[in-house]
Amino acid sequence: MKNPTVLQKFIKPTCFASGSCLLYYCLYSINMSHLAVYGGAGALGRVLVNYFKERGWAVTNIDLVENKAAQFNTLVNANEDLQTQATKLDQSFETLLKGEKLKALFCVAGGWAGGNAASKNFIKNSDLMLKQSVSSSLIAARLAARHLDDNGLLVLTGALAALNPTPGMIGYGISKAAVHHLVQDLAAPGGGLPKGAKATAICPVTLDTPANRQAMPDADFSSWTPLETIAKQLHGYSTGEIPLANGKIIEILTKDGNTAFNQI
Amino acid sequence: MKNPTVLQKFIKPTCFASGSCLLYYCLYSINMSHLAVYGGAGALGRVLVNYFKERGWAVTNIDLVENKAAQFNTLVNANEDLQTQATKLDQSFETLLKGEKLKALFCVAGGWAGGNAASKNFIKNSDLMLKQSVSSSLIAARLAARHLDDNGLLVLTGALAALNPTPGMIGYGISKAAVHHLVQDLAAPGGGLPKGAKATAICPVTLDTPANRQAMPDADFSSWTPLETIAKQLHGYSTGEIPLANGKIIEILTKDGNTAFNQI
Repeated sequence: MKNPTVLQKFIKPTCFASGSCLLYYCLYSINMSHLAVYGGAGALGRVLVNYFKERGWAVTNIDLVENKAAQFNTLVNANEDLQTQATKLDQSFETLLKGEKLKALFCVAGGWAGGNAASKNFIKNSDLMLKQSVSSSLIAARLAARHLDDNGLLVLTGALAALNPTPGMIGYGISKAAVHHLVQDLAAPGGGLPKGAKATAICPVTLDTPANRQAMPDADFSSWTPLETIAKQLHGYSTGEIPLANGKIIEILTKDGNTAFNQI
Repeated sequence: MKNPTVLQKFIKPTCFASGSCLLYYCLYSINMSHLAVYGGAGALGRVLVNYFKERGWAVTNIDLVENKAAQFNTLVNANEDLQTQATKLDQSFETLLKGEKLKALFCVAGGWAGGNAASKNFIKNSDLMLKQSVSSSLIAARLAARHLDDNGLLVLTGALAALNPTPGMIGYGISKAAVHHLVQDLAAPGGGLPKGAKATAICPVTLDTPANRQAMPDADFSSWTPLETIAKQLHGYSTGEIPLANGKIIEILTKDGNTAFNQI
């Protein structure tokens, strides 16, 4: 997704459109776990939606555009101010969840732009990075505080690079530093998440996406992280099958086709 | 200043208004050092303007409102987008400096708002904190890259609290974490500042201002930092009389009326 920062509220139960109305009414009566993916129409988001849906979860996509694979879509209008976006999304989830709670919420919206303070587009790119990474993460945090279940999981997207100075991509670095701080804030007592809920940020290096393969056809793909590998790991964190400490940054390193997830 | 994030460009040489036109023409012929203070109409900003002016500096105030004590004012319109603010301010300094350079640029704009993710005003306050601290710091960084002299000094305003999780004031904490990262980025090779220029962030705890005395009349004022003490220290950094490492966060601690500045 290119600019996930403002949202035009609407809930579109994809199941209605496809005629399988029963699904909507059955979702909670059979106690399906519900996941929301902010950025669920992007490359990683789509894989997350599919992976969880195939394992029996109800999935809501939050994005600029619909993802028909998700059972529900709440679309974002990037021309509205942040408060309006948050309020409309909150109302969408109120309507959608009917008092039920999300078991997990992932924010994989984001983008990248480089440049230092002397770059012509420094202000424009920094502003864009703040909107793409920080605004979406703040809204995800707010939705988590309101709609995540006790012991639920909030996953944001950080960046390993931001653990050190990033002079060549300042807007990106300061935005990801803010996201890392947000994770620590939410994980601390009094951060506002529901009881027992956890917050974390995944930090992949290079994702193995079609766009990246097209952009870097000669790269070593065995050091790129397959999207399904991340989906599998997040599923494990969400169900509790894979232990996860609260408030950690998760370094995702792939080498020779093997991926390690290190909580740091 | 309450919302220093958008700017209506205009340069108002205060000396013109007061009739002492000669000052304007003499400023550079006698090689006066020039300081710009973003937030120069706030409590700390006003003291900085006065302190440097009394020591023979030309001072430009950047703020929502004019500070008549400054020789020059470039006002900010908080309803414009960040790129427009930056472009207009840049043009103002182009006109004002006529190829000369700033010896120092201080950004002391900012504000405070609390709240965790469950707070009703979480999004609104976080957005405000980003605008007040991060947007103003980004613009200051851009102006420094464009108009600071070689070996000049850029001072931003950080917060000690943001070195740890800030669950009770999330918007404030993530914004200050971004400012701290910005300082490290600018200080690193390739950050875009002029050759030999330094970047730092001051981190006071409680400033001894009239507003704070009114708000907390029973507090221990001997642990508050006098504004002139900060002005004196920044003057020392600017002239080189007080050594300053590049890219450090400066902890300002006052106890029993004595203030220490620790570079961390």
